[in-house]
Amino acid sequence: DRIGSAMNRKIYLDYASSTPIDKKVLEAMMPYLKRHFGNPSSTHQFGQKARVALELAREQVASFLHCKADEVIFTSGATEANNLAIQGVIRSTLRLRSGQAKPHIVTTAIEHESVLEPCRTLEREGTAEVTYVVPNREGLIKVEDVKKAIQPNTILVSVMYVNSEVGTIEPIEEIGELLKGFPSTPLSFESEPEGSSLRVEDRAGKILFHTDAVQAANFLECDVEKMGVDLLTLSGHKIYGPKGVGVLYRREKTFIQGIVEGGGQEDGLRSGTENVAAIVGMGVAVEELESPRRMIATITIRQLRDKLIKAVLRKIPDSELTGSSERRLANNAHFRFEGVEGRDLVIMLDQKGIAVSTGSACSEKTQDASHVLLALGFSKKVALSSLRITLGKQTKLEEIENVVKVLSQSVDRLRKTKV
Amino acid sequence: DRIGSAMNRKIYLDYASSTPIDKKVLEAMMPYLKRHFGNPSSTHQFGQKARVALELAREQVASFLHCKADEVIFTSGATEANNLAIQGVIRSTLRLRSGQAKPHIVTTAIEHESVLEPCRTLEREGTAEVTYVVPNREGLIKVEDVKKAIQPNTILVSVMYVNSEVGTIEPIEEIGELLKGFPSTPLSFESEPEGSSLRVEDRAGKILFHTDAVQAANFLECDVEKMGVDLLTLSGHKIYGPKGVGVLYRREKTFIQGIVEGGGQEDGLRSGTENVAAIVGMGVAVEELESPRRMIATITIRQLRDKLIKAVLRKIPDSELTGSSERRLANNAHFRFEGVEGRDLVIMLDQKGIAVSTGSACSEKTQDASHVLLALGFSKKVALSSLRITLGKQTKLEEIENVVKVLSQSVDRLRKTKV
Repeated sequence: DRIGSAMNRKIYLDYASSTPIDKKVLEAMMPYLKRHFGNPSSTHQFGQKARVALELAREQVASFLHCKADEVIFTSGATEANNLAIQGVIRSTLRLRSGQAKPHIVTTAIEHESVLEPCRTLEREGTAEVTYVVPNREGLIKVEDVKKAIQPNTILVSVMYVNSEVGTIEPIEEIGELLKGFPSTPLSFESEPEGSSLRVEDRAGKILFHTDAVQAANFLECDVEKMGVDLLTLSGHKIYGPKGVGVLYRREKTFIQGIVEGGGQEDGLRSGTENVAAIVGMGVAVEELESPRRMIATITIRQLRDKLIKAVLRKIPDSELTGSSERRLANNAHFRFEGVEGRDLVIMLDQKGIAVSTGSACSEKTQDASHVLLALGFSKKVALSSLRITLGKQTKLEEIENVVKVLSQSVDRLRKTKV
Repeated sequence: DRIGSAMNRKIYLDYASSTPIDKKVLEAMMPYLKRHFGNPSSTHQFGQKARVALELAREQVASFLHCKADEVIFTSGATEANNLAIQGVIRSTLRLRSGQAKPHIVTTAIEHESVLEPCRTLEREGTAEVTYVVPNREGLIKVEDVKKAIQPNTILVSVMYVNSEVGTIEPIEEIGELLKGFPSTPLSFESEPEGSSLRVEDRAGKILFHTDAVQAANFLECDVEKMGVDLLTLSGHKIYGPKGVGVLYRREKTFIQGIVEGGGQEDGLRSGTENVAAIVGMGVAVEELESPRRMIATITIRQLRDKLIKAVLRKIPDSELTGSSERRLANNAHFRFEGVEGRDLVIMLDQKGIAVSTGSACSEKTQDASHVLLALGFSKKVALSSLRITLGKQTKLEEIENVVKVLSQSVDRLRKTKV
């Protein structure tokens, strides 16, 4: 096989599923995997060494988000942060005045499972009502549709910053603007929530706004003030940081209930001995997002991605780009190939040393059609024909050229097999 | 200061709070912090490389616990594992037949906060009833008292294997035996729990038994069959593994509801991209627990600990050992020094480069009297006079001799200051 032999190195183009840890990040982590092993809750120097490192990481994240350090909660990852946002807001309202309507959540049909699943569980338990706003064919959520979905008992709106599969950038600032001007919710506390310094009036009248910024953080500004969000999720391993760490930004005075309870770490919202090394890595990974090097990398990534899209659409007949052309994350390409199963393509490309995805790693195991593509209005059959290629800062022109060749041949071969 | 200058190296004697990562463990982790960065849910080779590593770690843990690999759930730590055990069992019963009594939990007054807090929250929410069994003066929970606490609506008993502060080893096997012979609970499912292969009759008649084995694992056998437990918690960073990883053993057919939902990892019970490197580290750390080297280290640790206790009680007037002499974990020493505050001692020893604790790192921040010592029947004043010294495999005789000297001087100085 000519192409196979030409490729003596593996090509990784699944950066949206996971990224390698940045060298600088790993170097910062190593001392905390070796000599600085103290428990940050300990009074002694071993503990305080770890404590200081945690607080530096918190400052680094706060600087990126344009927030205060004590508004940054470290979690075990974005999935936990999303759960904490959704469950945390709703479970805190269990202490609301009785006799009121159930709390209502507005979210979208294309969120990550770690937002959708907690919502479904709250619905099933009868704890909350949920409206799932449907995007247009390009994956775009209309601000108008969010507005229409809001009810008098709405207490939380959760809309992702960028869709993880098709890369569409959602109008977060505009939704933030919308929610600021919205009439106050009738829900209010009967009494101060236990263990909280929040006063009753602090909560009244504010529909909380959460955004899952996991995919966005690599390429887009995440200024919580501009965005008008109260809660925001980040993931370590999507931004060249380690796995096992995430962030939930929580605006001050936003009362949420923790879901993992115990020693009261992270302002009582996330108990458990802090994963010091991973948190240190998260801090450096977030700091790196704003480095000049990264800004330049973004330009290269976007150029390579544009070349990839152009070449694929030109070379492969009956191929189409999913998502938006304008409102698209810099590293995302998502295609549909008529008459081909994305799953077969992923396997065939893997055999040639090229790592891509059908949509998202989390749903790849189940082999169901992507809930995102179905929500975009595609049939199950079309949805199953999808392939996501996501670039990163290690991606090279040569790799893109190789991928186009192999992809073109593979689609061709699969189509011939079918006939 | 003669003693200060004699000590040119820091002495760490707080192994119960956190342990350094074993060299072998870190070496096993490194490839997964570097080149094997794939998402284990991905189909491609990068993903599968990570997947295989996870499953090997699962086998390593299963071998130690004498269980099947698919009974091992990896979590972000012991706190999450304890929460998953307690909340998971109770929240799964929300789908029980209506009109029945609330589910009831039997636990103890000396559990870790990560067991106590979820219990308190379930009580406050009105979701469950809880009985907290009180130990004797040595920290021992009597099997007879557990028996007495069981009600017709008891569905879960949670008793720690070893108390983390005073080191008392609880009669887990005996409690397991007790629960096996216990009449069946009247709670039963109305219908099969959603998304579970569990049949209705599987659950009926079994009081589930959970043990927090975080402190025990370093020194005691953890055979889930012998112990008769259905749920068991382990922590990575307490056994020379990394922070940010824990295990919940869950006996097959034991239905619990996940608390972090999303992509459905870990058999649907713990969503979120797996912390691959930390899980690999956990596997090796658990495997090491049974190595001959470790068996020998345990003998040394116990001898040094016995020397320490003997020397302290002999040299320091009005000092007492807390906990049990016979049923005591090999590395634990816990003292009370009349007329001295443990907090002051910790700070004074830290200034001499010696790291110890008043009780547990988690409660050290709050500066309240330990809930464990209060449950043992000590007054608040006596409880605040406590000091915990926990040894590890790096501990040397010279260090113990130094500590006795410094401790003796420090107690003396503090007592003189008071007068």
